Amino acid sequence: MSVAGNGNAPLRVGVIGFGYWGPNLVRNFAALEGATVTMVADRDAIRRKQARRLYPKTEVLAEGLALVTSENVDAVAIAVPAAAHYELTRAALAHGKHVLVCKPLACNGRDCDALTALAQRQARVLMVDHTFVFTGAVRKIHELITGGELGDLYYYASTRVNLGKLQQDVSVLWDLAVHDLSILDYLVSEEPSAIQAEGLRYVGQQDEVASVNLRYPSGFAAHIRVSWLSPVKIRFTELVGSRKMVVYDDVEPSEKVKLYDKGVALDQIDETPAKPVYRAGDVFVPTLDRTEALEVMAHHFLDCVKEGRRPLTDGRAGARVVRWLEAARHSASLGGEFVPLAPSGGSAGAGVRLDGE
Amino acid sequence: MSVAGNGNAPLRVGVIGFGYWGPNLVRNFAALEGATVTMVADRDAIRRKQARRLYPKTEVLAEGLALVTSENVDAVAIAVPAAAHYELTRAALAHGKHVLVCKPLACNGRDCDALTALAQRQARVLMVDHTFVFTGAVRKIHELITGGELGDLYYYASTRVNLGKLQQDVSVLWDLAVHDLSILDYLVSEEPSAIQAEGLRYVGQQDEVASVNLRYPSGFAAHIRVSWLSPVKIRFTELVGSRKMVVYDDVEPSEKVKLYDKGVALDQIDETPAKPVYRAGDVFVPTLDRTEALEVMAHHFLDCVKEGRRPLTDGRAGARVVRWLEAARHSASLGGEFVPLAPSGGSAGAGVRLDGE
Amino acid sequence: MSVAGNGNAPLRVGVIGFGYWGPNLVRNFAALEGATVTMVADRDAIRRKQARRLYPKTEVLAEGLALVTSENVDAVAIAVPAAAHYELTRAALAHGKHVLVCKPLACNGRDCDALTALAQRQARVLMVDHTFVFTGAVRKIHELITGGELGDLYYYASTRVNLGKLQQDVSVLWDLAVHDLSILDYLVSEEPSAIQAEGLRYVGQQDEVASVNLRYPSGFAAHIRVSWLSPVKIRFTELVGSRKMVVYDDVEPSEKVKLYDKGVALDQIDETPAKPVYRAGDVFVPTLDRTEALEVMAHHFLDCVKEGRRPLTDGRAGARVVRWLEAARHSASLGGEFVPLAPSGGSAGAGVRLDGE
Amino acid sequence: MSVAGNGNAPLRVGVIGFGYWGPNLVRNFAALEGATVTMVADRDAIRRKQARRLYPKTEVLAEGLALVTSENVDAVAIAVPAAAHYELTRAALAHGKHVLVCKPLACNGRDCDALTALAQRQARVLMVDHTFVFTGAVRKIHELITGGELGDLYYYASTRVNLGKLQQDVSVLWDLAVHDLSILDYLVSEEPSAIQAEGLRYVGQQDEVASVNLRYPSGFAAHIRVSWLSPVKIRFTELVGSRKMVVYDDVEPSEKVKLYDKGVALDQIDETPAKPVYRAGDVFVPTLDRTEALEVMAHHFLDCVKEGRRPLTDGRAGARVVRWLEAARHSASLGGEFVPLAPSGGSAGAGVRLDGE
Repeated sequence: MSVAGNGNAPLRVGVIGFGYWGPNLVRNFAALEGATVTMVADRDAIRRKQARRLYPKTEVLAEGLALVTSENVDAVAIAVPAAAHYELTRAALAHGKHVLVCKPLACNGRDCDALTALAQRQARVLMVDHTFVFTGAVRKIHELITGGELGDLYYYASTRVNLGKLQQDVSVLWDLAVHDLSILDYLVSEEPSAIQAEGLRYVGQQDEVASVNLRYPSGFAAHIRVSWLSPVKIRFTELVGSRKMVVYDDVEPSEKVKLYDKGVALDQIDETPAKPVYRAGDVFVPTLDRTEALEVMAHHFLDCVKEGRRPLTDGRAGARVVRWLEAARHSASLGGEFVPLAPSGGSAGAGVRLDGE
Repeated sequence: MSVAGNGNAPLRVGVIGFGYWGPNLVRNFAALEGATVTMVADRDAIRRKQARRLYPKTEVLAEGLALVTSENVDAVAIAVPAAAHYELTRAALAHGKHVLVCKPLACNGRDCDALTALAQRQARVLMVDHTFVFTGAVRKIHELITGGELGDLYYYASTRVNLGKLQQDVSVLWDLAVHDLSILDYLVSEEPSAIQAEGLRYVGQQDEVASVNLRYPSGFAAHIRVSWLSPVKIRFTELVGSRKMVVYDDVEPSEKVKLYDKGVALDQIDETPAKPVYRAGDVFVPTLDRTEALEVMAHHFLDCVKEGRRPLTDGRAGARVVRWLEAARHSASLGGEFVPLAPSGGSAGAGVRLDGE
Repeated sequence: MSVAGNGNAPLRVGVIGFGYWGPNLVRNFAALEGATVTMVADRDAIRRKQARRLYPKTEVLAEGLALVTSENVDAVAIAVPAAAHYELTRAALAHGKHVLVCKPLACNGRDCDALTALAQRQARVLMVDHTFVFTGAVRKIHELITGGELGDLYYYASTRVNLGKLQQDVSVLWDLAVHDLSILDYLVSEEPSAIQAEGLRYVGQQDEVASVNLRYPSGFAAHIRVSWLSPVKIRFTELVGSRKMVVYDDVEPSEKVKLYDKGVALDQIDETPAKPVYRAGDVFVPTLDRTEALEVMAHHFLDCVKEGRRPLTDGRAGARVVRWLEAARHSASLGGEFVPLAPSGGSAGAGVRLDGE
Repeated sequence: MSVAGNGNAPLRVGVIGFGYWGPNLVRNFAALEGATVTMVADRDAIRRKQARRLYPKTEVLAEGLALVTSENVDAVAIAVPAAAHYELTRAALAHGKHVLVCKPLACNGRDCDALTALAQRQARVLMVDHTFVFTGAVRKIHELITGGELGDLYYYASTRVNLGKLQQDVSVLWDLAVHDLSILDYLVSEEPSAIQAEGLRYVGQQDEVASVNLRYPSGFAAHIRVSWLSPVKIRFTELVGSRKMVVYDDVEPSEKVKLYDKGVALDQIDETPAKPVYRAGDVFVPTLDRTEALEVMAHHFLDCVKEGRRPLTDGRAGARVVRWLEAARHSASLGGEFVPLAPSGGSAGAGVRLDGE
């Protein structure tokens, strides 16, 4: 069986949803060598009109379910509200399409697992658009970690706040904290053992302000603060290790990642009791790949389809992040107590194997 | 009985502790019209030598307990580790001295209450040096709140991190979060009903990284993140209200407080369901009183002594903050669950009444 | 004669040049109610291909001169290198088209005057795309000046530096300082009486670093520093008045304009000699119109065409800016001495009158 | 003859002027191992009272000329207005004292030369307090230059503005630009060949806003903008070289110096005409020595006295900076034309040799 129809023909991509994120997906797949956007679906007539104006050669229809059954697409990218992710993804996989889903993969872990299993049975690529994983900044931090620059990881602390957009269907946790959880899933080689969260709402029907704490078996911990009610836009993360420390400020136009040669250690030889010794060395601001994250992501999706590889942000990654969000919601509903997390079923090393392997 | 010996004579102040904070107290009281620093005590010989060199006319001795019993002081300022606060303060009050204690007032709420009661019986001023309460920035924010500029308070979120100094005897909560708690005690007219905290340690014997959540009966909430292991110094607070929002950045050299005319409200008239409407107006950066906070604080202490007034940061304020710290520590020891807080015994309106009232 | 063919039909715009700036013009005119982009011209085949892909209904051709003679356009927007501005603009006006030209209007003042005169004879709109004049920031500063907030203007000082793009045909003065000159032309109600400049080149054939000083009859002065060789991007301007002071930082994502209630005055009553008295009050950060400047500019061009009004940045404004650039180049060639400027011929109040008045 | 009285005895320093800068000099010399402040002189009675209060063991008198003739001092530090520098320095050297003078050394180059010659005849150290030369930031930049990191130097551009303090006796050039000139004298191995300046005054009797351009034989150039009328405090310098570029922001609390691995070169091999190629690599933020500059300066003065060495900022350095200030003032008085500068008489390598050589 041929993965993408014909190895040399461009991958025919259909995009469901042409609201906020969908146009970005269309633009990137349309510009990608080796892919072409053949169909777009959206239930809103005005958006369909916009899609037709911008992409006159693309077939534009109303129903995503009609798109996923079309013979005219090899792969489907889904950019609709989370509640519809499971149904559309299931149908697309069932019809033999490769699928890229915007975060979160689905609304609960069980659905995520079912989609992962279905993708495996169908030998199709299932990938989640954890966009930040594909930014130059996060990939550089990953490189610093795996290169041992940071030493043992101590903690990750992130502030991700701004004014709006209050969502009707999901809380600020599922809207903003999901980014940090997907970054953590990529950067940290272990899984959290417990999660704690609290959420607050003042204006609407969903939590607008929240904090999350994650604990890991090694002692590593993560702290995330998110808000839709902050007057200023902040995207600021500290990642502290035993050897060096990283600051990642995504609002900065160019110097987003800084590596600090700083640390504290106990001087246990000379003194009783041991005395902390501080080290404050140079700061290094690495050049980052400035390619748009979505372009990198679209390229990776195409590569996985063409070469039958497992995506970096596959169904299992999507399932892990969704399970953490569920646990966070559960903790908040319990009044903020820590909720233990079971290790995810599959080992991170056991990738989906596609066609012919 | 005369409160300060003789109304016209300068208040004779003795300062116990000449390490990090003590010299600042001495410098400010020495410069204060109406006060004079007659004695300094420190157990460290090198510090005593420094004190003698800088203040040749001041009597310098080793033991704080000797200072508090001296006929040569009317008031005592205590700048030693927290463990010694209770004993020294008790002795000073017992000998009829007015007392200013560095934060925290004592190591537990019961000791704080005992000191407050003793001060009342002795008709002496007991004040805690909650320094931030006396800064131009925090006083301006108080003015904005009480003037109704912010509307209903939604939340306070503070980040207070830097590299070091790891303390041997107290955790980062008692060292850094105490500042936010004392600011909250001053700014917010209600008391928290529950507190949650978690602490993490990586290098030494005390928690070096922590987060705290406070909940208030009205729905107001506070979130505090503190760390001794961050590569950058951050002192950043959001205070969000229903009408306007404040950002307080204490690292900024001049524009520390910004008032944002921003907000979100549900437009419930025209639409079903209600749709959030965002307002993003002008920003106002008020001029701040740049007087050194310690000077304002020393002045206030002197005024309270001279006029028999209750200090803004009296023993009850000190007790409230200590009880919150105790509850935070308790929450962290329970693994991060919310701990309910009883309302403090006395009403905030019932001030200490001194001499002759 | 009808100005725009038919008052109700959309203005048919042709854009010459589809390199860096042209696509922005096309995008904005295409999105504008009341206008349609009927033609695009570019000599580069790859760019023509891009234009066809993005705008399938637009006629794309190679030669600008063919575009300006077409019956298919009412107005022409010119986004090609400066050397071709005069010829294309002249031809377009001669064929009865309204014209929008990117800065600078032409390569010398005489050509600018000729184009202005031709536009007047032809009763057509001639407008220069001095983009910054149409930003929310500069319009707000204009409002502060005309509202008297700043008092008498003392000086304007601007830093406009970054790395690249080294131009082959124009110096950094004509590439970057032109923005400040067009802003000054809009903000300041008098014309400069003398200009001084010096330029430096290190890598290529054009000056890459330059500074300019302008002097005005009232004592107002302007200072501009530009560079293509700076490691950081800076767009920072001070505008100091006798009453208040403005800082305009165009790199800031949101708080671009700050109004400082600061000043110095001599206290001449009480002392001999007079002693300076400093005033440091609040800072005000006004909300800015965030509409893209090019959209505002395109809208203004359309309005001027429809209503026969003189544009804010008409041919005379374009001529003034070009004459200042010529004088700056002359000063630099003389080794940096001040060059006097004659007042521009026409008064600023005598607008171009179009058709039927 | 012994340079400092007795090689092991501490250097007895007398400080003239106890206004703004004098107390800093006293504090640093008082804290310096190997020095002691024996005398302070100030004509103002209130300042003398302050000096007596802070330094009870130091002799305090009114007249500087009395101090320089005293047997009780080996060295004199002069922190009075510039107009008195020559007379006091001359007298001090004539009485065999080593002398440290605040910038500028004197009011004209001839006086500077006379003082330098006198110091040489008397075999005494004459040093100018060019404070910035002794900061960790400027010393690090010097190290980067001499280590070849920057390649050939292209230009130095500095902005040094704030609100106040308007001086009665000197212009903003002599008050603020002098810092940049002294930094340039230290950093750049060649001398400028021409200088241009213009000054503006709005409130008082001295120029309050000015810009300066320096040209060097190699093509290197410097640009300095200074103002007493800016609403914000800026201390920002670019130093651009052919290999790397430095940004020095002295307002930053910690990351003051950044080294950018950026540049532009013409790619002359492949193309006709040559095309600029941009390089944008990592940024490096070196750790800086945080010792207070005045402490380093005082230490260097003491070393020079003890070891008979020529100071880094000797009389010749002081003379060069004063000559540039004179030329800048001359250029401004001519309306801003470039004024040529003759090379300074002595070679930079020929140091003052003291005692016994």
